[in-house]
Amino acid sequence: MQELKDLAGVIGLATWDQETYLPRKAEGARASQLATLQGLYHERLVEPALGDWLQSARGLPLDEQAMVRVLTEERDRAVKVPARLVKELAEAQSLAIAAWKEAREKNAFERFRPHLERLLALRREQADAIGHGGERYDALLDNYEPGMKVERLTPVLQQLRQKLTPIVEAICAAPPPPDVFQGQRFAPDAQWTFTLELLGKMGFDLDAGRQDKSVHPFTGGTHPRDVRLTTRIQESTPLPAIYGAIHEGGHGLYEQGFAEGHFRTPIAAAPSMGLHESQSRLWENVVGRSLAFWQQLFPRLQQLFPDALGKVSLHDWHRAVNRVERSFIRVEADEVTYNLHVVLRYELELELLRGNLPVAELPGAWNAKMQSMLGVSPPNATLGVLQDIHWAWGEFGYFPTYALGNLYAASLFGAACREVPGLEAAISRGELAPLRDWLRERVHGEGFRYYAEDLVKKVTGKGLTDEDFITYLRTKYSALYGVKL
Amino acid sequence: MQELKDLAGVIGLATWDQETYLPRKAEGARASQLATLQGLYHERLVEPALGDWLQSARGLPLDEQAMVRVLTEERDRAVKVPARLVKELAEAQSLAIAAWKEAREKNAFERFRPHLERLLALRREQADAIGHGGERYDALLDNYEPGMKVERLTPVLQQLRQKLTPIVEAICAAPPPPDVFQGQRFAPDAQWTFTLELLGKMGFDLDAGRQDKSVHPFTGGTHPRDVRLTTRIQESTPLPAIYGAIHEGGHGLYEQGFAEGHFRTPIAAAPSMGLHESQSRLWENVVGRSLAFWQQLFPRLQQLFPDALGKVSLHDWHRAVNRVERSFIRVEADEVTYNLHVVLRYELELELLRGNLPVAELPGAWNAKMQSMLGVSPPNATLGVLQDIHWAWGEFGYFPTYALGNLYAASLFGAACREVPGLEAAISRGELAPLRDWLRERVHGEGFRYYAEDLVKKVTGKGLTDEDFITYLRTKYSALYGVKL
Repeated sequence: MQELKDLAGVIGLATWDQETYLPRKAEGARASQLATLQGLYHERLVEPALGDWLQSARGLPLDEQAMVRVLTEERDRAVKVPARLVKELAEAQSLAIAAWKEAREKNAFERFRPHLERLLALRREQADAIGHGGERYDALLDNYEPGMKVERLTPVLQQLRQKLTPIVEAICAAPPPPDVFQGQRFAPDAQWTFTLELLGKMGFDLDAGRQDKSVHPFTGGTHPRDVRLTTRIQESTPLPAIYGAIHEGGHGLYEQGFAEGHFRTPIAAAPSMGLHESQSRLWENVVGRSLAFWQQLFPRLQQLFPDALGKVSLHDWHRAVNRVERSFIRVEADEVTYNLHVVLRYELELELLRGNLPVAELPGAWNAKMQSMLGVSPPNATLGVLQDIHWAWGEFGYFPTYALGNLYAASLFGAACREVPGLEAAISRGELAPLRDWLRERVHGEGFRYYAEDLVKKVTGKGLTDEDFITYLRTKYSALYGVKL
Repeated sequence: MQELKDLAGVIGLATWDQETYLPRKAEGARASQLATLQGLYHERLVEPALGDWLQSARGLPLDEQAMVRVLTEERDRAVKVPARLVKELAEAQSLAIAAWKEAREKNAFERFRPHLERLLALRREQADAIGHGGERYDALLDNYEPGMKVERLTPVLQQLRQKLTPIVEAICAAPPPPDVFQGQRFAPDAQWTFTLELLGKMGFDLDAGRQDKSVHPFTGGTHPRDVRLTTRIQESTPLPAIYGAIHEGGHGLYEQGFAEGHFRTPIAAAPSMGLHESQSRLWENVVGRSLAFWQQLFPRLQQLFPDALGKVSLHDWHRAVNRVERSFIRVEADEVTYNLHVVLRYELELELLRGNLPVAELPGAWNAKMQSMLGVSPPNATLGVLQDIHWAWGEFGYFPTYALGNLYAASLFGAACREVPGLEAAISRGELAPLRDWLRERVHGEGFRYYAEDLVKKVTGKGLTDEDFITYLRTKYSALYGVKL
């Protein structure tokens, strides 16, 4: 277990470095190094002796039982997929990534089409190798959201979609907030300073982690004492740096919050990508876009950018960071429309996997869904079906975890408010430690003892639901936009 | 071969990161990760199938023969040392490092003594396991300087010592150069800019490598296209940054200069630490402290530091960077006295290994040799016998490679001057490419096709000798100090 965790940590380092400090000409070298490490990891994981040991493990204490369960599940998946298929997938992925980049540059979905078809065929084969009860998507979803099934997920996301549509319509009919950033410049050094202050306030331990810059913000690292965040800085607006830092900081707190007794074991891990995302979204949106949060912090931001923000009111700032728009791009979407972008992808990839939607018809289906769900139609494939890298990686089943993150975030924050007296008042005084401590105790410290939904149920008293999220949106946005939701 | 090279690259990354960006609290985690990687490397290396394959390899082209030879030698050493001893050594090293740090802080050699005794005992055992012809030191030296033997090395270093002593005496009797740094301040940003300009001029490819900061400058990285240098910056003088960058840049050019056909094989490597050091010392001292080098570059340095250096003459600057002093600390020593520091350590560690010098008597022996060789006596153990980390790592046989580097550097530069017309004139115009290209063709590109001394003989027409180095010192320093040498 420890050796596997160490290897995973080193893979994390090599990946982090690839996105932050790797010299340009070393890309090929790094690809081989990562392939070698992943090969060694796989080889170790499928060793028959480990399988025998896992099978014979009996009468262990609870945490050790969980370790055996998590490792057994990971190992079973690895054993079931033939080495030939793993290799074919890796090759198809790298060809698909290159074709996707070219297709984006040329706005030509056709160049990407055969690669996507190939990846789908391979992933279907992989799903069959792993095994499923008739729904191939379940076998892939399990990679990211262990225990979750299409049968459970679809009704929740359908209901979410139905509730969101009128909310978006009502908000977008109201007058938009003022653009406080137009024509302003925000010095990169001051942005950097502010993001580090934010991480400090959130309780991210900068002696057990760090922040660097990368084109796309991400959280990586090698160990709960070595958690690496990145953010990106744009001179025309401080929002990408601020919300990049808070979002990744939320992921980072999760990683730093695993119990010390679980380090170097398979349960020093989040039970799912959705639950991991719940932590980033909780901090980014529920906390980081709240009025309480900015009461203390906006004056500090004004101090750092007196020319640009000196005359902006707290109220206008709060509205500016909560601007809702019908837009093309998921990663730039606000928290109200965001889940619609996700549901769209979920519906499409489910049909792709089932074979009900031919790849050639995907761009048309995408645009039609954009029109019906978001009321806009992308002018080209780059702003539409080609915008995300996930399918080029052959990752089907990843998208819904983003929506799960948003739903879990609202439910968990609701529970925190019930259990921690004066939580929102503390936040408005700039005190984030009570929330961080509660999350550490109730969520982070549990590691992968339970499946995501079971853990959420244990903490909030109910499992996956859109209710808390919808209530949160209605309360917040009816006040912000002066509309009845 | 490729897998081993990839693993070595990743070990390089994890080590580099440890010295540059690792969060403070992650030290323990990184130690486990490195131990796991090293364990995997060892396990792969000693696999019987690899041994069989290496033994059966026949009729290969020359480069492939060299690959088999280098890997066979590495593997034989690994196979011969029992796993128990490897583990005991690793444990003894980490205890010794901790004790050494404490001993330095408290100026108390006694705290370190039992650890050094233990390391010596283990290294003797290791030398016996590897095998030797009666001189255990040879088996250890072979780790760093393959093919070199005490029998060959001792007379060269003894002669060097004898020639250096009167040279040091004569120089130190002459008036010292002026101190151009006193009371000045050198902005760190401008120092950093200058070091990057220097690396660019040397032809170090910053798209296939990078420079960062660390407490002790070093060269690391993962691949010839991913070479990582560090330097350190001191506000009171730019010399550590400048000479750190040039020295590590010399190492870095070697690493970047391996032939592309050798990448991911055992011969994309220097044949010895001494030859590697010859490249850093050639650039640092023979080139980087020459008048020709500064003719073009000193005006640029003055431009960056007008207040501090605007009124300093080129002549005074050249003298300032070549100040010779009898000093306590090896790493701060000038190029004239430096080899005496090395010979002192070589003589002592040879006697320690042979069992002729009890560890308890080491501090006294150190001080006596300092007095007789350098004419100074360290006031305490921290400035004396405890100054270097090498013995705390249990590294016996490493020190002489520094002296070999200096000797080879002078011989190689002599050959370059003979073969490249107008080389020194080019350097004085700031053109360093002709030298770099010559080194790449004659030294770097050869990789580990030959043992170090054989390669030097192939390039210069003669093997290891102190003649070129002594001639270089006499010519340079008789002019600089106005003394007859």
